[in-house]
Amino acid sequence: MDAVKPAANVRPAGDVETLVRLAQADMAAVDALITARMQSPVQVIPALAEHLITAGGKRLRPLLTVAAARLAGADGDAHHKLAAAVEFIHTATLLHDDVVDGSQMRRGKVAAHLIWGPASSVLVGDYLFARAFELMVETGSLRALAILSRASSVIAEGEVLQLTRAHDLQLTQATYLEIVQAKTAELFAAAAESGAVAAGALEAGVSALRAYGLNLGLAFQLVDDALDYGGQSEVLGKNAGDDFREGKATLPLLLAVARTRGKEDGFWDRVMNRPGEQSDADFKRAREIVVGSGALQATLDLAGDYADAAKEALAGFPAGDWRRALEELADFAVSRLA
Amino acid sequence: MDAVKPAANVRPAGDVETLVRLAQADMAAVDALITARMQSPVQVIPALAEHLITAGGKRLRPLLTVAAARLAGADGDAHHKLAAAVEFIHTATLLHDDVVDGSQMRRGKVAAHLIWGPASSVLVGDYLFARAFELMVETGSLRALAILSRASSVIAEGEVLQLTRAHDLQLTQATYLEIVQAKTAELFAAAAESGAVAAGALEAGVSALRAYGLNLGLAFQLVDDALDYGGQSEVLGKNAGDDFREGKATLPLLLAVARTRGKEDGFWDRVMNRPGEQSDADFKRAREIVVGSGALQATLDLAGDYADAAKEALAGFPAGDWRRALEELADFAVSRLA
Repeated sequence: MDAVKPAANVRPAGDVETLVRLAQADMAAVDALITARMQSPVQVIPALAEHLITAGGKRLRPLLTVAAARLAGADGDAHHKLAAAVEFIHTATLLHDDVVDGSQMRRGKVAAHLIWGPASSVLVGDYLFARAFELMVETGSLRALAILSRASSVIAEGEVLQLTRAHDLQLTQATYLEIVQAKTAELFAAAAESGAVAAGALEAGVSALRAYGLNLGLAFQLVDDALDYGGQSEVLGKNAGDDFREGKATLPLLLAVARTRGKEDGFWDRVMNRPGEQSDADFKRAREIVVGSGALQATLDLAGDYADAAKEALAGFPAGDWRRALEELADFAVSRLA
Repeated sequence: MDAVKPAANVRPAGDVETLVRLAQADMAAVDALITARMQSPVQVIPALAEHLITAGGKRLRPLLTVAAARLAGADGDAHHKLAAAVEFIHTATLLHDDVVDGSQMRRGKVAAHLIWGPASSVLVGDYLFARAFELMVETGSLRALAILSRASSVIAEGEVLQLTRAHDLQLTQATYLEIVQAKTAELFAAAAESGAVAAGALEAGVSALRAYGLNLGLAFQLVDDALDYGGQSEVLGKNAGDDFREGKATLPLLLAVARTRGKEDGFWDRVMNRPGEQSDADFKRAREIVVGSGALQATLDLAGDYADAAKEALAGFPAGDWRRALEELADFAVSRLA
């Protein structure tokens, strides 16, 4: 792998544990709500939901809702139901995504649709999505409902856009970022924004936390896309090379294609137009080009810019445990590859 | 076909046109909202949504919302957004259903997933579902949101229950009706109930209109299930025998199996355990048994009971155009086979 640029070394590693510890009591309550509200007498529903929800994801999105609410001064627990709703929306989109992509693994476990069938994944996703709205309605906050219903339609729109452009090697960086913003960053933004709203934050605080979430989401997805070419399966919870094998035109690949134009066109055309048929040698070669051309580092640099923007969005809040934990999280987002 | 029982002949045919004419202005506004809110710069979304939404369905569910609001004394148009939301929820479930069932036709057209692929159907369904919630939020009615979000989770739960029990010839009538109530009647009930809420109806009126919708929905689904064995493809908008070929244990079939126990067990076991592999002769024979055993008529009789209950639920409202139109609709629900 290329030498990592000095600038990247300067960035602190950050961590997610600071936030996890700080939000421990909140998240225990949120987890209890999640477990209670995914129950159903129709057994496949809790079985399938539990498979995914208890698979040990970091619960980043509900953590954001909790942290935003606390940073904005929440003293009650009005944000717990919103945090649980955010996790349900996320889980529903994961279930549908894995069906759409035919993914084999999720969070280090066999994807639910391979165990219970795609039909169950589609319908249990619908169930969790509806349960999310029931939770939101219970909070009585029309504004939080507006934020999260809009986020849900933006996510679906981004997923469809990705579906129609996923294999397009001519995808511009702008369109790629538009997809990432819609399918990933929007829920991070809405998670933080709705937490701020639940806490009764002033408009400036609501906007700042939305901006934090949006930039954090962009950083996370860019690093995820980089990990597909630079990570280990154990870190990913899925197989390295999955995006490549599915023929997904993510930024590391798009940059590598652009940087090797006229030299590797034949290789890219062949491997990107036959999803699922590439050999291990094809992935090894793609990985070498993505790293060797500097495309991987460029992707990480851009993620770093977004992480910096996320931290800057918090500047208006007084220094303290919650702000520091969110700053650590932003640094963590881009250090996962190290 | 068996002679139709005299009692069934006494029932007036009813019609849906009375309601359609009465609600014409309302529905023009609802249709305009539907068209406006299914737009997206991501072209496959409006293309796919339009394919299904403009296919000439009767828009029964939004009609119910409008009629309930008007019968309850609505003088504004607060119910239009709820009616459009109800149609979006319905369309989303149809898109997902057709993927789950692998259905070939819908509303007389090729099913969307066969044109745009199952992934697009799943994701556009998600988009329309989210758009439904955005519309509801705009009405500012938390109660309507509560009614329709609960209905959405009940529907999904019913779909999963159907999925796990669909081919079970031991299904009891009670479980079958539980599935029908969840997957079909609940949205009819919520459509009418939310219309009443939008009109500011008193509690008795809200409950009565919910009861009307619930019973009407049960009647409609029972007749739909009967039509699979007694109808023509042109009336159905799908092929007669589709439920049979998919191995769906609907009431006409369950009653026929029960009524021919010890005589036709081998036939039923063979044809119900091989969805998609039955011959035309198998369907012809199944149809003869369903009709000849009286199972078809028994299903229609039960549908008639629900239609009567729907009409009775309206007894507390003053006589007038809207009440009469809803009574006609209940009669129409069970006369479609004639």
